[in-house]
Amino acid sequence: MNDASPNSWEARADAATFYGFTDLPSVRERGAVVLTHGEGPYVYDVQGREYLDANSGLWNMVAGFDHPGLIKAAQDQYARFPGYHAFFGRLSDQTVMLSEKLVEVSPFESGKVFYTNSGSEANDTVVKMLWFLWAAEGQPQRRKILTRVNAYHGVTAVSASMTGKPYNGVFGLPLPGFIHLSCPHYWKNGAEGETEEQFTQRMAQELEEVIAREGADTIAGFVAEPVMGAGGVIVPSEGYFQAIQPILRKHGIPLISDEVICGFGRTGNTWGCETYGFTPDAIISSKNLTAGFFPMGAVILGPELTDRLQRASEAIEEFPHGFTASGHPVGCAIALKAIDVVMNEGLADNVKRLTPKFQAGMAKLAEHPNIGEWRGVGLMGALEAVADKATKRPFDGKLSVSERIANACTDQGLICRPLGQSIVLAPPFIMTEDQMDEMFTKLGRALDQVFAEVA
Amino acid sequence: MNDASPNSWEARADAATFYGFTDLPSVRERGAVVLTHGEGPYVYDVQGREYLDANSGLWNMVAGFDHPGLIKAAQDQYARFPGYHAFFGRLSDQTVMLSEKLVEVSPFESGKVFYTNSGSEANDTVVKMLWFLWAAEGQPQRRKILTRVNAYHGVTAVSASMTGKPYNGVFGLPLPGFIHLSCPHYWKNGAEGETEEQFTQRMAQELEEVIAREGADTIAGFVAEPVMGAGGVIVPSEGYFQAIQPILRKHGIPLISDEVICGFGRTGNTWGCETYGFTPDAIISSKNLTAGFFPMGAVILGPELTDRLQRASEAIEEFPHGFTASGHPVGCAIALKAIDVVMNEGLADNVKRLTPKFQAGMAKLAEHPNIGEWRGVGLMGALEAVADKATKRPFDGKLSVSERIANACTDQGLICRPLGQSIVLAPPFIMTEDQMDEMFTKLGRALDQVFAEVA
Repeated sequence: MNDASPNSWEARADAATFYGFTDLPSVRERGAVVLTHGEGPYVYDVQGREYLDANSGLWNMVAGFDHPGLIKAAQDQYARFPGYHAFFGRLSDQTVMLSEKLVEVSPFESGKVFYTNSGSEANDTVVKMLWFLWAAEGQPQRRKILTRVNAYHGVTAVSASMTGKPYNGVFGLPLPGFIHLSCPHYWKNGAEGETEEQFTQRMAQELEEVIAREGADTIAGFVAEPVMGAGGVIVPSEGYFQAIQPILRKHGIPLISDEVICGFGRTGNTWGCETYGFTPDAIISSKNLTAGFFPMGAVILGPELTDRLQRASEAIEEFPHGFTASGHPVGCAIALKAIDVVMNEGLADNVKRLTPKFQAGMAKLAEHPNIGEWRGVGLMGALEAVADKATKRPFDGKLSVSERIANACTDQGLICRPLGQSIVLAPPFIMTEDQMDEMFTKLGRALDQVFAEVA
Repeated sequence: MNDASPNSWEARADAATFYGFTDLPSVRERGAVVLTHGEGPYVYDVQGREYLDANSGLWNMVAGFDHPGLIKAAQDQYARFPGYHAFFGRLSDQTVMLSEKLVEVSPFESGKVFYTNSGSEANDTVVKMLWFLWAAEGQPQRRKILTRVNAYHGVTAVSASMTGKPYNGVFGLPLPGFIHLSCPHYWKNGAEGETEEQFTQRMAQELEEVIAREGADTIAGFVAEPVMGAGGVIVPSEGYFQAIQPILRKHGIPLISDEVICGFGRTGNTWGCETYGFTPDAIISSKNLTAGFFPMGAVILGPELTDRLQRASEAIEEFPHGFTASGHPVGCAIALKAIDVVMNEGLADNVKRLTPKFQAGMAKLAEHPNIGEWRGVGLMGALEAVADKATKRPFDGKLSVSERIANACTDQGLICRPLGQSIVLAPPFIMTEDQMDEMFTKLGRALDQVFAEVA
């Protein structure tokens, strides 16, 4: 498959690109996939091959790859005002309107918005905000950040430190002061004979113990995805947020909901925190915020953090932080349209409508003897491959089972994502039932093929 | 000026925006400036007021606020392929073409490109690359990053740690291991009777001493802007980079040129390192890269770092880093056009043509008894206000002289930037001679007015 002639697109890609999050042996063997355009949930490469992207790009292209309303919103704003910043009290009208809209659709009665260019920057920003806040309030030692194993919060040095993945060890991360609690994945981490309720209580107990060990007065905040996305669609154990939030409150530790993946419809509601019944102190948004049409992140501060941060900033006359493209007028115009498209033009409804079919399809595939668990909520799900279903024993890592399944899908024109030993699906919200059938048929074939090879 | 009625744009901006890098007393007194559109180098607010933006937005809108070619490039790519990522060996054709173009126009014979969404992320990324590289090569203790006082490298916790500004203290930054050398600003930091050559030698000597004190084997890299931008347009002292580069080479310390502001024409050449006669090991690019039309940053690796990082990545099969919108097809299409617009459609030529007039205008204003120095190169410059020209004594900080000058400019419809005690100008590359006359006339009036008040 790898066209190695020096003028091929594949060779040109290899020549000048430093690949990130890319399995280099796969690219060497199979060649890069160079994409030119898309239609609905499909993308097309330079060879004319078609792929149904069951991952919405990277969770984010929820309106597909040629949504006319979003294209028009972008084009119109480019014609109107193609760029400005938000420093020095100068900002675009689009930025003002998006901030109003974000507070309006947030779970908060009131609040304020700070813009970044990515979820990584938004998480990095909220950490800086917390460090700033506690120091301004006379507790400069409150700097530790609590997150969980398997969490994904980004790739800046600080957001990578929040991320609970072993691969960050190659950078010498996490930095000191970033503490990873256990991953609330009952199927995998539940003890022998432990009920889900007991497991949740154990997670809460661990939080109490970590706070006691570290000292509440050294902890700046707790940041969590409602459902861990890049951790492999880890749905929290029953009652998890209800168990931990009172503990955080008791110790005055703000709870930040990282809604980069969950936000704007993925879990079947506007926010993941809505789906799991809790109200955080701030929300981190990105990805769906612009339906992937523009790099943008946002920190949406709830009323209490708004007041406290505003007071702290007034005291020094300026909050000394901001990105050149924070609140970019084109990004804001696109986000205004994307929110409307998702919430009011049928996409959120389609998520609700498709969810039973999606979950039934996952459950059916999970009958395979080499699928240990399917898990998910709304239009996000994962199938966990196992060598032995009864003991939940995983395959030998050297077999690269999930990568092989993903490659067998790609060969049939289906993109899905290998994550650890699982295969993740996060279809665009515009998917039709026929396209969903195509997705499950192709994935089913890939599972049969690869499990026959390795089992 | 502040329209405080609750439905005014100004009140709406205040209600939902958490302002960054904004003087809050000024906004309270004068109101936010809410902008709707632009024409050439002018922007317009909701009240219909016109402003000549002598700062090109934030250094970046070098082709102005309605460049037809850039608008069309953006609109066309939105119609073609409005979003994708660059993970898993999949990426857009635009991304491949931009990487080729960036290596082609770089000072390097060969190299590879890694994309981010901002200069902050690109600087954060290069630090992670260096940490990864040294650990992979068996020197995990090589983690310290050398930068300079007054340098500006961004606002993520790591890029803010590289930034040598006292305001980062409110976040408890810099993090440990970020070391700030002296700012090579001869006018301000030169000792009594010291020649510029001696000053440069002292800067080099300090570098040698810091390396000896810290141990070369603990230092990961040295990152420097050719001209410090947000430091106040600090042009390096004569021979500075020629003096320090051999020292870095001797100790095996990579030299990274942060060209976020200087890159693509600002100093009169494509790169600032070209203007100052050195070849770095990698280049950080952003801002002009897309002429401000899209959030994008890039790390352009020279041949040696490419080889070493590629080898280190192959060994673990993947470089575990990347942003969702890294190499976004629309950003890449815009960047391809922006590079062409700057380099081949007359903008770089206009910078060269206007530079003598710009510098003559600055020199003329610097005759004022309360201007201690003008400095600059190409189309970037600063005027430093002083209470006493002979002794270089600054004004009392409480007088907020530069903010008052900037506000007096804004009142006349001219945007320029107060930075410390200086006023910074960075006009768009499309400026005409008439517009430059307007800029200097209005700035001259503002200086007269404010200095009459305070002197």
